[in-house]
Amino acid sequence: MFVAKVTGSLVSTQKADSLVGHKLLIVEPYRLEADQRRSLVSTGRTLVAVDGLGAGEGDYVLLTQGSSARLTPETREAPIDTVVVGIVDQVHIDQQSVYSREEE
Amino acid sequence: MFVAKVTGSLVSTQKADSLVGHKLLIVEPYRLEADQRRSLVSTGRTLVAVDGLGAGEGDYVLLTQGSSARLTPETREAPIDTVVVGIVDQVHIDQQSVYSREEE
Amino acid sequence: MFVAKVTGSLVSTQKADSLVGHKLLIVEPYRLEADQRRSLVSTGRTLVAVDGLGAGEGDYVLLTQGSSARLTPETREAPIDTVVVGIVDQVHIDQQSVYSREEE
Amino acid sequence: MFVAKVTGSLVSTQKADSLVGHKLLIVEPYRLEADQRRSLVSTGRTLVAVDGLGAGEGDYVLLTQGSSARLTPETREAPIDTVVVGIVDQVHIDQQSVYSREEE
Amino acid sequence: MFVAKVTGSLVSTQKADSLVGHKLLIVEPYRLEADQRRSLVSTGRTLVAVDGLGAGEGDYVLLTQGSSARLTPETREAPIDTVVVGIVDQVHIDQQSVYSREEE
Repeated sequence: MFVAKVTGSLVSTQKADSLVGHKLLIVEPYRLEADQRRSLVSTGRTLVAVDGLGAGEGDYVLLTQGSSARLTPETREAPIDTVVVGIVDQVHIDQQSVYSREEE
Repeated sequence: MFVAKVTGSLVSTQKADSLVGHKLLIVEPYRLEADQRRSLVSTGRTLVAVDGLGAGEGDYVLLTQGSSARLTPETREAPIDTVVVGIVDQVHIDQQSVYSREEE
Repeated sequence: MFVAKVTGSLVSTQKADSLVGHKLLIVEPYRLEADQRRSLVSTGRTLVAVDGLGAGEGDYVLLTQGSSARLTPETREAPIDTVVVGIVDQVHIDQQSVYSREEE
Repeated sequence: MFVAKVTGSLVSTQKADSLVGHKLLIVEPYRLEADQRRSLVSTGRTLVAVDGLGAGEGDYVLLTQGSSARLTPETREAPIDTVVVGIVDQVHIDQQSVYSREEE
Repeated sequence: MFVAKVTGSLVSTQKADSLVGHKLLIVEPYRLEADQRRSLVSTGRTLVAVDGLGAGEGDYVLLTQGSSARLTPETREAPIDTVVVGIVDQVHIDQQSVYSREEE
């Protein structure tokens, strides 16, 4: 799993039947900034995730990929390989806060 | 999942029996351009995807990989790891449009 | 899936029982050359694939990875994660030929 | 599998039901330092792993990813793709110790 | 699958029950040297693999990853995602030997 920031959304009318009704979010995976180790920064990658938790733009989310992405009630048996499994409240690294949802 | 642009096709006569009849598209994964964040740009990667939705050259599509790629009616039980699950109509990032199918 | 060029082979005497009798090819994944977009070039990666289609050195092949690699008659229930699912005859990108088996 | 260092933790209140009660660790994958080959160094990546072994900050752990991450008693049937399967005591490379938990 | 060199080992006392008794090797994935194409060189990555074939330090091995890594008698139902499926005797590329176990 990894942390990503929700930065947008995707609209698709023609899609696999089992995707109908699923909210599709644009998410950008984040990593620890390597020099100061005090903040999260974008990896430059852009993914699309299914969300059943109500995450909104600007939220940091926890993503699961692969076959495990199908193990939520919403994604079972669907052709989905990336899913939001949590909305992130806090990330602590080296015993310091590098992200807090409240402070945003 | 991720967004890719359909840029070509692949012909293979000698292939696994369960691939016969499948349309094989050349697709190039795209990501958000990092500086202006106003457009999608190629990642430089080249993949091959099975398509059951009728995507054409120039279309942006949503791709699923891994075992989940087998969860469409067309791909079940076939040795396929990348499938088109949607034709993209619009992508919004930072509350702005970075891709719209109509404007192409 | 992706396109790779067969450039060699691998011999292993001590191996998992279920691999006995399988032909092991050295394959190098290829991608579209980014500037001119008129040819395929090596990604610099080196993989090993199981082949049940009779691909030879110099052939371009279509590879499937992950659990889907086990969905051919030859690879079922074996510890194999990369398999040749097609021998490539032609690749068209931007409505031009970037590879044709006959011209090689 | 690969070695990673536990450097933090993540708090998520809104999450998939099957994740409730799971400890979420921030882990940074490590690799052998390439020049001297005498120590482990960070790859610069940041992942989130489920831990059922009681690993603490500063520990080096062995991680498993993909569907195999669900094959521990704690992670079965959960949307989890990265799990701690061991706390590392020692790593030997080129017949020298490159990590020993006791010396930390 | 890919070729890797066994360069060390890992000791873990606290680990998942199903990992007890498994030998854990440090392995470094290798690729073809790109300029001369006459030797194998390290990719700089460091992985951990389970071995049931008796591979020793200095050996080149064939590795399988993902769910297929569980399809050996030793790894079935264990949280393992990387396994040695063969000890490499010879690698030929461009009709020349780039590795031979006997010559080492």
